[in-house]
Amino acid sequence: MEAQDKLYDRIRSSFDRQGFLALLGAELEYAEKGKVVISCKRKDILTQQQGLLHGAVVTTLADVSCGYAALTTMPDDAEVLSVEFKINLIRPANTDKIIATGEVVKSGKLLVITESTVTDESGEKIIAKMLATMIVSHVKE
Amino acid sequence: MEAQDKLYDRIRSSFDRQGFLALLGAELEYAEKGKVVISCKRKDILTQQQGLLHGAVVTTLADVSCGYAALTTMPDDAEVLSVEFKINLIRPANTDKIIATGEVVKSGKLLVITESTVTDESGEKIIAKMLATMIVSHVKE
Amino acid sequence: MEAQDKLYDRIRSSFDRQGFLALLGAELEYAEKGKVVISCKRKDILTQQQGLLHGAVVTTLADVSCGYAALTTMPDDAEVLSVEFKINLIRPANTDKIIATGEVVKSGKLLVITESTVTDESGEKIIAKMLATMIVSHVKE
Amino acid sequence: MEAQDKLYDRIRSSFDRQGFLALLGAELEYAEKGKVVISCKRKDILTQQQGLLHGAVVTTLADVSCGYAALTTMPDDAEVLSVEFKINLIRPANTDKIIATGEVVKSGKLLVITESTVTDESGEKIIAKMLATMIVSHVKE
Repeated sequence: MEAQDKLYDRIRSSFDRQGFLALLGAELEYAEKGKVVISCKRKDILTQQQGLLHGAVVTTLADVSCGYAALTTMPDDAEVLSVEFKINLIRPANTDKIIATGEVVKSGKLLVITESTVTDESGEKIIAKMLATMIVSHVKE
Repeated sequence: MEAQDKLYDRIRSSFDRQGFLALLGAELEYAEKGKVVISCKRKDILTQQQGLLHGAVVTTLADVSCGYAALTTMPDDAEVLSVEFKINLIRPANTDKIIATGEVVKSGKLLVITESTVTDESGEKIIAKMLATMIVSHVKE
Repeated sequence: MEAQDKLYDRIRSSFDRQGFLALLGAELEYAEKGKVVISCKRKDILTQQQGLLHGAVVTTLADVSCGYAALTTMPDDAEVLSVEFKINLIRPANTDKIIATGEVVKSGKLLVITESTVTDESGEKIIAKMLATMIVSHVKE
Repeated sequence: MEAQDKLYDRIRSSFDRQGFLALLGAELEYAEKGKVVISCKRKDILTQQQGLLHGAVVTTLADVSCGYAALTTMPDDAEVLSVEFKINLIRPANTDKIIATGEVVKSGKLLVITESTVTDESGEKIIAKMLATMIVSHVKE
């Protein structure tokens, strides 16, 4: 349990330094080893031409959930970078809140393979699916 | 030339209805049949934890440049939706301005295959590469 | 049960017309609505430079399992085509037999989004993960 | 010129150890630093259910052209592995011969980002586009 709190704090700390996530109003909902959940509420500034949550917001949440899921399996002094990802935008984000669940498929010393599922508020409708490659980045600050 | 102006206006009009692009401060730089260029300047609210332009901003620009490049090959009453895309984030966006050039690889009646290259301000350093599938969506308003 | 037998026969029939799958020695293991399992044994002609099953064989199995999983949700007279796919080759195929399980994520009238997991013979080690877009193709013969 | 011959021989040597490429009848057409061209002729054993070259063969050629393009930028004792790739199958391979041109987008110490275009025999029709991540693998034999 304490280990999990530490994980949450580690991600929280990185999360809070990302100006772009604050701009979106993204929330860190949950973190355990290999799994991170992030949410974001619909706001007018986050919409596309039809007034729905922009695909870019959906993509950002999926990417961030993959990145932080990967980070939970990396050494304490590591940071995470997205090498690449692929996303299928499956349904319009016709919902007040999207929820992105990132999970680790395989954790290597260097590369971590992850996937994310983005759903609507109810958790029942899949809005997007991502498959992503993350890399360990050792940052001396 | 007039046809090109019409294309530009068509994209401009859709562009301006996207709250999210306004939020980013994205600019439509250029449009011709099969090619669209979009740019975005570095601002503090668009950064990740190291103060660089967020990968999500890079991805958004690439996606939007692909979508609008596709739109230039679609019927006048069509809208465009992203089915899916894959992006390689190749270099940190260590620049004051990123430029995304979206181009059509193959335009079908229904699906349009596109790619985008995102560079730094000088146009010399490739920051990201995208390969994306767009679909015609007929919207009655 | 009968519906499932019909599904199996439908895929079997398409499967048997693919010269390339015969060449690989791929086997149709299982089919239900939204899910298809295909396997392939290691043979010397299917190897890469280190004597392991070639990534191309792993990819083929994943793609075919996605395509047939999609086909199980399509009308009787439809055929399926791969629009695109993305695969992560996660571990070397250090096994005598690979097993690809393709599943439908979302079935639309036109596009079907699918994913596949390829494992070793034991089913425990993930060798590859695919996320793929399939399209309905109506073929008059 | 001699450097180029050496490159060609290096790839040729790896190529010839791949049982699967021999099975396909794939040919190494050309190699320079950052670029490799591979071709494959239509044969009945390489077809899908409509008698055209199988998408898996198209994919294999694209992947191999990316991998060897990456290898031309790696140290002499390195081997190359595909981390992941994404391919759009754009047109049916309605041709007697396909030609895959793999090129390096960015060569890093560890990761090499590549792309490949597969065309018909004339070089005019694009059959597929790939975007792929390759990794340096040091193999002691």
